[in-house]
Amino acid sequence: MTSLDFPGWSDAQLARVEQALHRWVPADAPAGLGEAMRYAVLDGGKRARPLLVLAACEAVRGNDQAALRAACAVELIHAYSLVHDDMPCMDNDVLRRGKPTVHVRFGEAQALLAGDALQALAFELLTPGDGSVPEAMQAALCRLLARAAGSGGMAGGQAIDLASVGKPLSEPQLRGMHRLKTGALLQGSVRMGAACAPQGVGEAALAALDDYGAAVGLAFQVVDDILDVTADSAALGKTAGKDAAADKPTYVSLLGLDASRALARELLAQAHRALDASGLPDAGRLRALADLVVQRNR
Amino acid sequence: MTSLDFPGWSDAQLARVEQALHRWVPADAPAGLGEAMRYAVLDGGKRARPLLVLAACEAVRGNDQAALRAACAVELIHAYSLVHDDMPCMDNDVLRRGKPTVHVRFGEAQALLAGDALQALAFELLTPGDGSVPEAMQAALCRLLARAAGSGGMAGGQAIDLASVGKPLSEPQLRGMHRLKTGALLQGSVRMGAACAPQGVGEAALAALDDYGAAVGLAFQVVDDILDVTADSAALGKTAGKDAAADKPTYVSLLGLDASRALARELLAQAHRALDASGLPDAGRLRALADLVVQRNR
Repeated sequence: MTSLDFPGWSDAQLARVEQALHRWVPADAPAGLGEAMRYAVLDGGKRARPLLVLAACEAVRGNDQAALRAACAVELIHAYSLVHDDMPCMDNDVLRRGKPTVHVRFGEAQALLAGDALQALAFELLTPGDGSVPEAMQAALCRLLARAAGSGGMAGGQAIDLASVGKPLSEPQLRGMHRLKTGALLQGSVRMGAACAPQGVGEAALAALDDYGAAVGLAFQVVDDILDVTADSAALGKTAGKDAAADKPTYVSLLGLDASRALARELLAQAHRALDASGLPDAGRLRALADLVVQRNR
Repeated sequence: MTSLDFPGWSDAQLARVEQALHRWVPADAPAGLGEAMRYAVLDGGKRARPLLVLAACEAVRGNDQAALRAACAVELIHAYSLVHDDMPCMDNDVLRRGKPTVHVRFGEAQALLAGDALQALAFELLTPGDGSVPEAMQAALCRLLARAAGSGGMAGGQAIDLASVGKPLSEPQLRGMHRLKTGALLQGSVRMGAACAPQGVGEAALAALDDYGAAVGLAFQVVDDILDVTADSAALGKTAGKDAAADKPTYVSLLGLDASRALARELLAQAHRALDASGLPDAGRLRALADLVVQRNR
């Protein structure tokens, strides 16, 4: 699909991901569990992580079937984290993607189980037994996803977030939290896309893709913080202003709106420079995705 | 270690598993998360699942390093399920392995995150990047664990359990619930041990091991139900009589104590017959483990 312009490519990829998620998130799991899992995942979200996987795979001319599975797997991890994050013992949020959150709709116990089952499903998607993805690639994808999702990545960042409510954080501390909380899975998405290269990717290109992923990951969070104060709940599909209301440190509360916007622009420039340095000829989708992350309005 | 008698072998394996868990469950995860994870996993539990993995690996003369990782990974999944299961929105239990439950000790939010991070860590353990386990074996182990833990296994069984409180279940319905809730991970443990065979295992032997795993898995639950009414909390290390108090269907409430004991004996005989049918010469540890599961008093 290298011939399509970015919106055309993006629309086509989003449709593929949606279709795959509809197929792979089971409707028939017992006792309403499947219904809760599908509610948490389908028909919503920007799918930024799947697009990063697929764009990175295109940049390295990787295995497209592996990338589609990886794209869905990272989205399942993201979706489970939102389900658990919204629960009363965490952020206690009632609105997500314009709909009642999973625990509001299905009860807390079912929300807890649905999140747990979505995490397991992510690793199940990465390990098909049908020979469609080389087994060494399956192992590499599981390794990258587990590290990005676990205590050294997303879950660790959430623990820092929990411990930070009502505390003044310095900019390096805030950056350290986001590097794990949202950055690890976004950077992990880029790595997983690159891991779909049948013959691997050179070390210099991998390092450049890591720089790209780190810059886009942080930019994503800075823009989230900006949108939390500049957009309304209807546009966001979630409760606007909730971080400020919860007395959570954000880039806007720390740096102000103008400096946050300048930081987002600088991170975008960093992402572009990293792609230039990667030497990958097909990195155009990754470049356009970085633009989208910074220029989005929801 | 084939020359040791069963207690000697079992003690040695338990010490290895404990040492490996101490090494692999991170103490340094951010903001107290590592502490909560270690509290949930270390120095407690019967380690029935790790022993099943290691005994099955011995039966197929498998890769011992892979089996140790698999043994720890299944235990992490089991431990995370207990942390989440004990939370107020689920069973709301305060005592586990003779200690306050994780959410009592660390708060609900940290317990939720610790469980999530333990699940991710399980898959991280299965996918070392150091070449110590063949990558095809890593992929197979992840596949088996993800299926055993997810909506078609343990999490699905928990959803049935949730939906069954206060409802009369038939014996086949109760068996169906336990086949997923506890059976999937126990049977999965046996499968994972068998997946450590470098050249694979013949289909007939695999089917026999599956029969063994199914029988032992169900026996485990039947004995749990018996102990719930015959043992006291101090011996169990958890709240005795809680299933009856919660109006949960159990084998004892359905069949009575004597018939439940007869069922456990019959399942043990099934497990023995399956091992005889497997044709595996080194299945002695699996046989002794089945005995232990049925004859335990906690």
